[in-house]
Amino acid sequence: MPPALHLTALPAVPMIEPGSDLAAIILEALARAEIELADGDILVVAQKIVSKSEGRLVNLETVEPSARAGELAEMAGKDPRLVELILRESRQVLRLRRGVIIVEHRLGFICASAGIDHSNVRGPDGRPEDWVLLLPEDPDGSARRLRQRLEAASGARLGVLIIDSHGRAWRMGTVGVAIGIAGLPGLVDLRGRPDLYDFSLQITQVGAADELAAAASLVMGQAAEGTPVVHVRGFPYALREASLGELLRPENEDMFR
Amino acid sequence: MPPALHLTALPAVPMIEPGSDLAAIILEALARAEIELADGDILVVAQKIVSKSEGRLVNLETVEPSARAGELAEMAGKDPRLVELILRESRQVLRLRRGVIIVEHRLGFICASAGIDHSNVRGPDGRPEDWVLLLPEDPDGSARRLRQRLEAASGARLGVLIIDSHGRAWRMGTVGVAIGIAGLPGLVDLRGRPDLYDFSLQITQVGAADELAAAASLVMGQAAEGTPVVHVRGFPYALREASLGELLRPENEDMFR
Repeated sequence: MPPALHLTALPAVPMIEPGSDLAAIILEALARAEIELADGDILVVAQKIVSKSEGRLVNLETVEPSARAGELAEMAGKDPRLVELILRESRQVLRLRRGVIIVEHRLGFICASAGIDHSNVRGPDGRPEDWVLLLPEDPDGSARRLRQRLEAASGARLGVLIIDSHGRAWRMGTVGVAIGIAGLPGLVDLRGRPDLYDFSLQITQVGAADELAAAASLVMGQAAEGTPVVHVRGFPYALREASLGELLRPENEDMFR
Repeated sequence: MPPALHLTALPAVPMIEPGSDLAAIILEALARAEIELADGDILVVAQKIVSKSEGRLVNLETVEPSARAGELAEMAGKDPRLVELILRESRQVLRLRRGVIIVEHRLGFICASAGIDHSNVRGPDGRPEDWVLLLPEDPDGSARRLRQRLEAASGARLGVLIIDSHGRAWRMGTVGVAIGIAGLPGLVDLRGRPDLYDFSLQITQVGAADELAAAASLVMGQAAEGTPVVHVRGFPYALREASLGELLRPENEDMFR
């Protein structure tokens, strides 16, 4: 069999609310799609439904912006309450322009607006415009818990990947990236493997979980018909314990901050 | 049918040499894999075999390094002849450290060593160590010509994507990225599509061709058993004319150069 990768977006995943049991919902969606989990399968889950199920909604009316948030909001042309939340979720602001705030998130990665989302969000009072959604408190932990539940229910050895869409330096357009990992490698080290002519390979470390995140993001789509859970069969690398940290370039090795 | 994406690495693609007929080789590999091309299918091809077929091998012994190449080579700890080729293939050097030269390639993207590869390369005289492989002269054109041949042979409307593996700002590990595009969108604009609650979407432009490049890169693998052509079925966006340019962030809009 030639190497092949199959990604299937699970249909009819219901609207996720704070407290929703994501593992149960995913197992039901798999059953509806007639997919039986097998060793080596991976479930890729959009950050948004993880965050919602964990109650990471914040009503902007409850947020008191600091003086600094007010200043930055003025410069960026953003709601000071939103900027306050961005600052609370971040280690440092890297760039700020009209409409754009790029930060190092407290979770260690670089992204716009600390990953805070105000699309597809509705608060418990039904008024969507005053609510925003923060990233999960600990996406690696969320992935780990989800994996435990799915492995216990299926008996299969699985990986779980939580993804978001990030903009990039140098290139246009967002791509899916890993923000939480359980059971699959983030980075795969190919150093020392011979290539076709017994040279050592120049490409030595592959961002395998990010490549999978991008693939799954393509299948999920972004709009009304969004499908936030993707089942993956055929991931080419061995599953192992891992965490997001291996995908994050240490600041002192990063030439582009 | 739920959205699904299927990627299959074509088995037993033979060694590519300068002058190899890539289109014919891909059609034979598809036939062996019993894949019949259908409207909307995409072929993803590793840069390396496109470059080899186009004779982009350079014998380092024929390269006379300039004074500037000599200086930069000293600083980076690299072969001055290789650095000379990097400079010839680049518009500007963005960063230089021991072992690393990051440039803006003449094709417009940012990458290490101008994408010049000395793994998996053997010259006509069989001595691999003195030969390196440059990127294709015009990867969009290479993709376009390949697409024309494959469409003519199959009668199907197809996309062709030429990919390479690039390192990234901020994150560890390389990921597959587009360097040449024909017949599929590089960037997909989702602005104005309603989301689940009739907000306008925050994520507006998706780097769809780069997401597909990452997915295909995962399937290709990098080592001795490398499979440089991937067949894709289920790409979720409509095919259209495009070129790499739409994925390249203009320098004056790039906050991270």
